[in-house]
Amino acid sequence: MVARLAIVGTGLIGASIGLAAKRAGVGHVVAFDADPGTAAIALERGAADEAAESLPGALEGAELAVVAVPVGRLAPQVSEVLAASEGACTVTDVGSTKAGVCAAAGGSPRFVGGHPVAGSEGRGPGHARAELFDGATWFLTPTAATEPARHRVVHGFVTALGARPIAVEPLAHDRLVALTSHLPHALANVLINQAGATRVDGHDPLAGAGGSLRDMTRVAGANPRIWVDIFLENAAELRASLGEHRRRLDELDRALGDGDAGYLARWIGEASVNRRRMLAEAYGERQPLHRLSVHVPDRPGVLAGVTQALGAERINIEDFELQHRSVESGGVLTLLVGGRQEAERAAAVLEAQGYTAVVSLVEA
Amino acid sequence: MVARLAIVGTGLIGASIGLAAKRAGVGHVVAFDADPGTAAIALERGAADEAAESLPGALEGAELAVVAVPVGRLAPQVSEVLAASEGACTVTDVGSTKAGVCAAAGGSPRFVGGHPVAGSEGRGPGHARAELFDGATWFLTPTAATEPARHRVVHGFVTALGARPIAVEPLAHDRLVALTSHLPHALANVLINQAGATRVDGHDPLAGAGGSLRDMTRVAGANPRIWVDIFLENAAELRASLGEHRRRLDELDRALGDGDAGYLARWIGEASVNRRRMLAEAYGERQPLHRLSVHVPDRPGVLAGVTQALGAERINIEDFELQHRSVESGGVLTLLVGGRQEAERAAAVLEAQGYTAVVSLVEA
Repeated sequence: MVARLAIVGTGLIGASIGLAAKRAGVGHVVAFDADPGTAAIALERGAADEAAESLPGALEGAELAVVAVPVGRLAPQVSEVLAASEGACTVTDVGSTKAGVCAAAGGSPRFVGGHPVAGSEGRGPGHARAELFDGATWFLTPTAATEPARHRVVHGFVTALGARPIAVEPLAHDRLVALTSHLPHALANVLINQAGATRVDGHDPLAGAGGSLRDMTRVAGANPRIWVDIFLENAAELRASLGEHRRRLDELDRALGDGDAGYLARWIGEASVNRRRMLAEAYGERQPLHRLSVHVPDRPGVLAGVTQALGAERINIEDFELQHRSVESGGVLTLLVGGRQEAERAAAVLEAQGYTAVVSLVEA
Repeated sequence: MVARLAIVGTGLIGASIGLAAKRAGVGHVVAFDADPGTAAIALERGAADEAAESLPGALEGAELAVVAVPVGRLAPQVSEVLAASEGACTVTDVGSTKAGVCAAAGGSPRFVGGHPVAGSEGRGPGHARAELFDGATWFLTPTAATEPARHRVVHGFVTALGARPIAVEPLAHDRLVALTSHLPHALANVLINQAGATRVDGHDPLAGAGGSLRDMTRVAGANPRIWVDIFLENAAELRASLGEHRRRLDELDRALGDGDAGYLARWIGEASVNRRRMLAEAYGERQPLHRLSVHVPDRPGVLAGVTQALGAERINIEDFELQHRSVESGGVLTLLVGGRQEAERAAAVLEAQGYTAVVSLVEA
């Protein structure tokens, strides 16, 4: 476990990381926020052992620095943290978009992008909770430049906070969240504004609206200080998702115009199957650990590629290690996976990547 | 209170009406369902005192008949109930669209269209609850043909079930629900199917989706047996809402393409205001009753028009009565409204309609 952690930015997410880190047994947590009042609240909540007065002060001796500032300030802040921290310090972030910040990290071997899929309607450290990440997906975006040992530190840290690390390529991450988060947020805003701007025979649609409109717009009007930047940062990918959404609306409009009951029944049935599939994606019970040993070539990006392929299959990697042997004979990658079936699934993914994995049970 | 109630169709809504009616003190409830097994479950749940073996048997001696069959069978069923019931029997329905069924009622003075804005993810009488309508909006669509006394029976019944009756013109109703219910349902289906059909770098967007996608798609895949008919029945109004939705998406797309932070900030801010306004529409406490007395001309449609105007302003009418005097001198409409402020608001609405209302406190 990390002995000394620096948290840069102590809003809801930063302070919750502090609380979850203390719960997980992190020795010493130092908080820094550009607004000293925000850092003071985090300290008071027990999200940190100490509030630093300067960024360099917070980073001194840190093994891991988590940058948790809003998306709009993220890229320069990560650059600054990388510049101000020592070589031993691994750096990660929690931004909702990843291509920009990974580019800003400029191929630093010490940087691993991150994004916990967790949040709350409450804002600021006053709403922080140690349980915020329990069972949540936490995307990690290692690149070919990332040192495997740094990736492992962040992977282990995130797992210790209760989350499930899933590796993904930075731009693929941004495409994913455009579809699963930014498009839903945008539609919620569009829908509530359409209802709010309409009057039907004098009736206000917002009055007496049923549960469907309330559910569909729960995320409407989310903190503009954060969301304007997210929408703009990920504008290209969000526009692509919007384009596909509009194509599907055209199809629906056609079916409604034609009175095509068959289309509508298939379409609703498909939605029902998809929704059940989404809800079935919950965690299973903890399974006995299995070890996969894989001989891999000694080339940059091999670990990132393997973990991204496993991430795409949602295989839960408990831990991993890449042992270097030599440039000629390559190295050995060891992965720990819960459950025999998951381990076999992982072996199949690795096989498809051209590797041969040996699976064995880890004796307790 | 109604002494003898017939419920035709004992699914979730029909059986919940039975339970709520028994809770409200309705003397005798007779249930009929084309599927005797469904009626038997409703009976077993206590939603009826008796299950009739035929429709005429159920309607015999009924003061009020509530037709609660799916939208696809609603229009012919209402015609049938009107034909099979006696002149003393008032008839209402609970369909999610109103123009079609009101047309099918063929201007019967005994028919008042209705639509409780309530539902559940559970289907069938096994999921029925007496509390389903507590505090819910219950749209009523009286027309010029509707006898005021029939309107009053249904208004009183719905109020006794715990709901809030809101009068609205049938086609305006269908426009309203196209926007507040059918469009959200359609977007939920579109969104989950888009996410379910997409793979990003091998990743399934449905895996590890955050709360926003889950909330936005709660109503996705709702019972196709019901929803195909709703979408088709209200296709024209839904397409109009979809058209406006697409216009707003074009605007958003333009703002994203231009990097227009000002537009996005205003748009999110507007969404936040609209959402707060929607949530503020909850019930207040019960207020002392006030009586409004209004002299009205003796013409068909006067009561429907007045109640629709009050409905548009969400004024909570506890009860009303239209006393006929003569064709020359017209009649007197008495309305009971909770709270001085609401009564004054109602008086202002009536004034705008060309009537003069006298407001007085009802002494307990």
